[in-house]
Parts: sequence; structure tokens; C-alpha cells
Amino acid sequence: MAVRWFYLSALTLSSLGLMCILFTVYWMQSWHGGFAWDGTIFTFNCHPVLMVAGMVVLYSAASLVYRLPQSWVGSKLPWKIVHAALHLMAFILTVLGLVAVFKYHNHANIANLYSLHSWLGITTVFLFACQWFLGFAVFLLPWASVWLRRLLKPIHVFFGASILSLAIASVISGINEKLFFSLKNATKPYSSLPGEAVFANSTGMLVVVFALLVLYILQASSWKRPEAGVVTERQPLMHERE
Amino acid sequence: MAVRWFYLSALTLSSLGLMCILFTVYWMQSWHGGFAWDGTIFTFNCHPVLMVAGMVVLYSAASLVYRLPQSWVGSKLPWKIVHAALHLMAFILTVLGLVAVFKYHNHANIANLYSLHSWLGITTVFLFACQWFLGFAVFLLPWASVWLRRLLKPIHVFFGASILSLAIASVISGINEKLFFSLKNATKPYSSLPGEAVFANSTGMLVVVFALLVLYILQASSWKRPEAGVVTERQPLMHERE
Repeated sequence: MAVRWFYLSALTLSSLGLMCILFTVYWMQSWHGGFAWDGTIFTFNCHPVLMVAGMVVLYSAASLVYRLPQSWVGSKLPWKIVHAALHLMAFILTVLGLVAVFKYHNHANIANLYSLHSWLGITTVFLFACQWFLGFAVFLLPWASVWLRRLLKPIHVFFGASILSLAIASVISGINEKLFFSLKNATKPYSSLPGEAVFANSTGMLVVVFALLVLYILQASSWKRPEAGVVTERQPLMHERE
Repeated sequence: MAVRWFYLSALTLSSLGLMCILFTVYWMQSWHGGFAWDGTIFTFNCHPVLMVAGMVVLYSAASLVYRLPQSWVGSKLPWKIVHAALHLMAFILTVLGLVAVFKYHNHANIANLYSLHSWLGITTVFLFACQWFLGFAVFLLPWASVWLRRLLKPIHVFFGASILSLAIASVISGINEKLFFSLKNATKPYSSLPGEAVFANSTGMLVVVFALLVLYILQASSWKRPEAGVVTERQPLMHERE
């Protein structure tokens, strides 16, 4: 039952995640002229796409690795490597997303890191970096004691969900800010809800729905890998499939 | 141990929560001329204060009621009433916060509900209303079956934390939006980080720190009321104090 629900949710989540990325690409392509890497406004356009793809969608996929029923049995090590590798890929996309906005700001002589969106965003990426390095050092490398791992695991799990929540707050404030900039002198201002405003607002709400589903699956106890030594009704299910 | 930590955290949280409200009041008082209820911009100034006070600080206090060690023993009913009553007060402040912004918009002929901040904010308040009424009907009134309560409890708990997270995203995007409005034609624009920008950005970050602490305490298992019939090492601790 739990397994069937997991796969249904995984399919829904994958579709929603893909839609979040494609909607952001479509927004930047259709209303802002597409992408480049030359320091112009088209470089800035990579920023929302890379942040949504890295800091929200791939980050969520990486976080959900231990919810895959295949990861519940057998050695945990291969799943730890997948978890860390996917998070590293998410982190690389996120850093590229930051590079895009700094490159554009420096090219256009715009100050960096002044808005609350940027303060929260950079804090979120900093926490993500700390979380990854601490997770790598304590949970993946073999040297940390069981005592230290037990102490840090609830903190690692808490910050995993918190960083996603902060990323959502950053994405929402970022989309909001971008619309105030781009629809400032438009013939149809933001307040008259032109097509771009409705589309980008909807993209923001879609990102929220996606993240809420991810957070729900992360905390739902029936999808968690059983602790070592604990036998549940799920494990025989897995053996039956082998 | 857990009890001592709880009280230390409660003291820290109360101070931080109070600071969040006072900082928002100071921002509106010092840079925007204070408060009124006549439909002018001074009516709008009530909006951020009421939202931070209701939707963040009082909401958090109401959510943490079951973490009070006093609530771990004896009848749950009085604590349910306190939980529901505090959330109702938080909801009333939140609705007054909405009234403030609608009153100002209507008075100044500004469109309502166009920004992503407003879309997310109104969704958050709607979810809060649903959560309160469903919680009241299922958990406080005596007619719901044990089966229904067990089914809805994890959903109630999940949405409790989620609504706070969405409120934070709304507050961050709201502060960001307000600063882009108020520092648009200023002699020192937002990008040059004038005093108001630093102060309001810091208030936003303070709200984030406060909410993260609340969410941590909400999910920390050692501070949860033991389930009926489960005896833990905390319960004798409570009896010793009586």
C-alpha cells in the first residue's frame, strides 16, 4: 500500500518538478528573450531557471533518495553515495545560478546582495554548503563515531527540510521582485495582471505546491527507511519482489 | 534535561518573537510615520505589524502549547482549548492585517491581490482558516471518532508547520516588496543599502531565525507530549515537581 502510494507520488512529483523548471524556462524565453552567458540580461535569465532546477527540484529529488523502497533493504552506502552525488549536482546548479546573477550585476554595474531576497538566498546557499560538507564528513566518510552520527542525524534531517523551505521563500520573493522590475514601466503594469504576471505568479504557486508535497513525503513515517534492526511489514514486501 | 532546555528555548523564543514585532513596529513608526485606521498609508502600516504578530509570533506560541511540560500529564482538554483559543487570536490579528491592506488599497484605488506575495499570503490565510475549523471540528468537539482523529492528526501537524513556513515566505516577499516600493524614488535607493533597508532586511532575517527555532522545537521528539499509554522518563520528572 505504502509502496504503491510512493510510486504514484513519485510520478506526480516528477511531473510537477519538471513543470516548475519548464514554466520558469518558458517565462524567461517568452517574456525576456531567452538565455546567454555573456553578462547581459540574458545571463540573468539563467538565474531563476538554475535556482528552481538546482535548489528546488534536484535538491528535492536528492533529499527523497532514502524514501525509495529499494533503499530500505541492504547496504545503505550506495544510497548515501547517490544522496550525496545528487545533492552535489544540485549545489553545482545552484552556484551556477548565483554566478549568473553576479555576472549580470557586475556587467551592468548593479550592486550585489542588497535586497532581502538576496540576503535570504545567499544564506540558504551557505546553509546548503555547510549541510553538504558536514553530511559528507560525518555520514559518508567512514571516520565519524556512531555517537556523533546519532547526535547529528536529527539536525541533518531538520536542516534538510529547512533549507528547502528557505529556498521556497527565496524563490517566491525572487519571482515577486523580478515582476516588479520587469512590469514597472510596462503598458500593462503588474497591478493589472498581464499575461506575464499571471504566468509567473502561477509558476511561483506551483513551486510551493511541489515543495509542500516533497516536505510531506519527507516527514511521512510510513515511507522512511526502517532503522537498523527494526523489521516492519514493508521489508517482506520488498523480498517478495526480488 | 529536556525540560531545562525547553525553558531556555522558550525564553529565547519569547525574546526573539517580541523583537520581531517591535522591530516591525519601529520600522513602520520611524520610516513610515506610524499607524492609523482611516484608509491612508498609515492604515497600510498596520499590515506588516499585524501579520508578523498574528501569523508568525502568536501562531507559533499557539502551536507550541503541547510542548509545555505541564501539558504532558493529565487531561489534554484544557490544553486543546488553550491551543485553539490562541490560534483563534492569531487568526483574528491576521484577518485584521488583511483588512488593513484592503482598506488602504480601496481608499487609494490600488488593485487588490495581484502580486505573488498577495497570492501566497491569501492562500496561507485560507489554509490557516481551514486548519482551524477542521481542527476545532475534529479534535476539540467531542463527536469525531478516534479513527478519524488518528487519520487527521499527522495531516493537522504537517499543515501546522507548513502554514508557518508559507507565512515566512509571505513575510519575506512582503518586506522585500515594501522596500522596493518605498525606496524607489529615495535619495538613497534600496541598492545603496540605506538605514531602512538594513533595518528591514535584518527584521526579515530575524523572523526567519525565529521560525526555524519554532519549527525545530515542534519536530524535536524529546519535547512532544507522550502518546496515551506511553510512559517515558519525562513523566516521573513532572511528578517529582508536583
